[in-house]
Amino acid sequence: MLFMTALFLLAGCAGPALRGTGDLGVVIERASGSVQIVDTSKRVAIATVKGLGDLSHASLVYSRDGRYAYVFGRDGGLSKVDLLRGVIERRVMQAGNSIGGAISQDGTLVAVQNYVPGGVKVFSADTLELIADVPSTYGSAGLRSKVVGLADAPGNRFVWSLFDAGEIWVGDFSNPGKPRIDKFRNVGRQPYDGLITPNGRYYLAGLFGEDGMALLDLWHPEQGVRRILDGYGRGQEKLPVYKMPHLRGWAVAGRYAYLPAVGHHEVLVVDMDTWLEAGHIQVSSQPVFVIARPDGRQVWVIYAFPDNSKVDVIDTETRSIIKQLAPGKTVLHLEFTPRGESVWVSARDDNRVVVYDTETFIQRSVLSAESPSGIFFTHRAARIGF
Amino acid sequence: MLFMTALFLLAGCAGPALRGTGDLGVVIERASGSVQIVDTSKRVAIATVKGLGDLSHASLVYSRDGRYAYVFGRDGGLSKVDLLRGVIERRVMQAGNSIGGAISQDGTLVAVQNYVPGGVKVFSADTLELIADVPSTYGSAGLRSKVVGLADAPGNRFVWSLFDAGEIWVGDFSNPGKPRIDKFRNVGRQPYDGLITPNGRYYLAGLFGEDGMALLDLWHPEQGVRRILDGYGRGQEKLPVYKMPHLRGWAVAGRYAYLPAVGHHEVLVVDMDTWLEAGHIQVSSQPVFVIARPDGRQVWVIYAFPDNSKVDVIDTETRSIIKQLAPGKTVLHLEFTPRGESVWVSARDDNRVVVYDTETFIQRSVLSAESPSGIFFTHRAARIGF
Repeated sequence: MLFMTALFLLAGCAGPALRGTGDLGVVIERASGSVQIVDTSKRVAIATVKGLGDLSHASLVYSRDGRYAYVFGRDGGLSKVDLLRGVIERRVMQAGNSIGGAISQDGTLVAVQNYVPGGVKVFSADTLELIADVPSTYGSAGLRSKVVGLADAPGNRFVWSLFDAGEIWVGDFSNPGKPRIDKFRNVGRQPYDGLITPNGRYYLAGLFGEDGMALLDLWHPEQGVRRILDGYGRGQEKLPVYKMPHLRGWAVAGRYAYLPAVGHHEVLVVDMDTWLEAGHIQVSSQPVFVIARPDGRQVWVIYAFPDNSKVDVIDTETRSIIKQLAPGKTVLHLEFTPRGESVWVSARDDNRVVVYDTETFIQRSVLSAESPSGIFFTHRAARIGF
Repeated sequence: MLFMTALFLLAGCAGPALRGTGDLGVVIERASGSVQIVDTSKRVAIATVKGLGDLSHASLVYSRDGRYAYVFGRDGGLSKVDLLRGVIERRVMQAGNSIGGAISQDGTLVAVQNYVPGGVKVFSADTLELIADVPSTYGSAGLRSKVVGLADAPGNRFVWSLFDAGEIWVGDFSNPGKPRIDKFRNVGRQPYDGLITPNGRYYLAGLFGEDGMALLDLWHPEQGVRRILDGYGRGQEKLPVYKMPHLRGWAVAGRYAYLPAVGHHEVLVVDMDTWLEAGHIQVSSQPVFVIARPDGRQVWVIYAFPDNSKVDVIDTETRSIIKQLAPGKTVLHLEFTPRGESVWVSARDDNRVVVYDTETFIQRSVLSAESPSGIFFTHRAARIGF
């Protein structure tokens, strides 16, 4: 009996080793409903966690301590994954159709944006208990809008857009169970995604139904939402759009932001002091993600079908493409290491993740993964708007 | 015997619990040669580690995974502290008089800047084995300069200044054992501290022996060092300076940097697009640290003797002081939590650390500490120039 106990304890002790979480990350395996936990120092996978449901278009945020990933599944599943033990700590089905989320500045609240039923639900980051439910009801008929573009802002606020209603809502969750919601109406037709600048000050929504973007200065909400970049959008001809660009993973380098043009083969350069277009860069195809290396010297671009196996690297000083890479078939996402010496790129249809040195463009590592899509590293926990 | 084994194993299992490291930090206790390990989520101390030698003017950097702090003691001691187990993992005496250090972009190299003997030593972050030794020899007489202003830069480079020689050196440690050193001479008299901008592009050295600052664009080292801010310094009258301001913990908010004036009761605002002065803000005394909240909306200022118990909060939009706080006697340092909801302030002569909410300025917590000075949180591991 004691021997058994000793063995049991030994097994217990042989469990997860102590380790820091600052160099961990998660790779979404969309086809199999699983995630890989990766170590960005050794550039290896250390565990696979299954049972996360429908992970198409999945994203995640990290707990304040970097130990847990909150994975937002398309099927409305919200899963809290323990990176150290490699298991699902908790999981709730919180909606029928969901599209991402955010974590509050103080790390206590996880918010999810839902298509069906439309609205934002806010959960305890600790227990996943429901703390607040904000249906996206608009107009006089009691309809609920799809919610998009959810982002965290300083002051334990969340900001999101109502696709069907053309509204931006700001929720102050300082008193979590009784949020104060400020609604900005008539911001433009069909906001399809949103983002917050890295300083947490400006919220922008891209508009699918018309050109331009809706801009809200969170330092001055009393000034209301204004329209910027009238030339930004599909244009008069309504160009075909093969895949909606993502705004959240956008690129900021100094005072300039680099935005994927909608429909066009261009990256727009926007001066964030004036919110006017400062230039545009011809690229290989319709950009889907435009992401800056952490030091802002490079911007990496990936594309929609049929050019979704290309990766272009723009030098921000000359605004020209300095490198083209081919990591594999159907590149879906990329993520830089915290200080930018490496970048991890997912090539879904080659079932691999390729790690490049960002100075030499040499491949540092290739990892096997099942249909990898999103890649997310734990330093996001310490950033506004990630 | 088995019983004993079981007990032993039980004791082993009852060791440090698994936990994330993203919300950990270290408070230097300068008088007792110890550090406290703190949890910024619960706002408590979780361990004290002793035996770190002379910690006056001590600073530290974090390992890439956030588990280890490399503490640079004034006596030349370099200690690798394990935050999870609360012990000194390794310790070497590497010089006679030392003044801080940095960690390379990829996390593999820890560099220390030394006064005596003057130079930079570079160690393996893993083992603390010496990998490179770069004496700060200058001129024709074989003299060695004190080294100051050491900072990390992208591309596994370190940059530092030679106080006695008036030089800036850039070391490329891509091949760690055989660094390439580029020397910039005649940059100005007595560079006393340096800093690198958050994007890793510009290195600035403050000059004690004359006015102005020395600026090196690391994207264009071929352009050499140029002089900026001719009005920055003690001025013609050579004002008394009660404590040298620190440049490293500086404040950047958008395109503006906020610098402590030398000798004057002012914070200088510098436009980083032009490197010209964009204004100055009257403050309570001679500033020692000027540090921005992570969203850049506030800049917090602490002062030299005899006003070193004051803390002023500047609103960056109006450039005026919006709050004055008195956390205790002899405030030596402050550190914001990663997303800025709280700030931790050390009051040495009241033996306490006070935690404020940065929106409401309410005290969230008070921790006891023995003569606390520097406060450092693990998210620094993911930042350039920290």
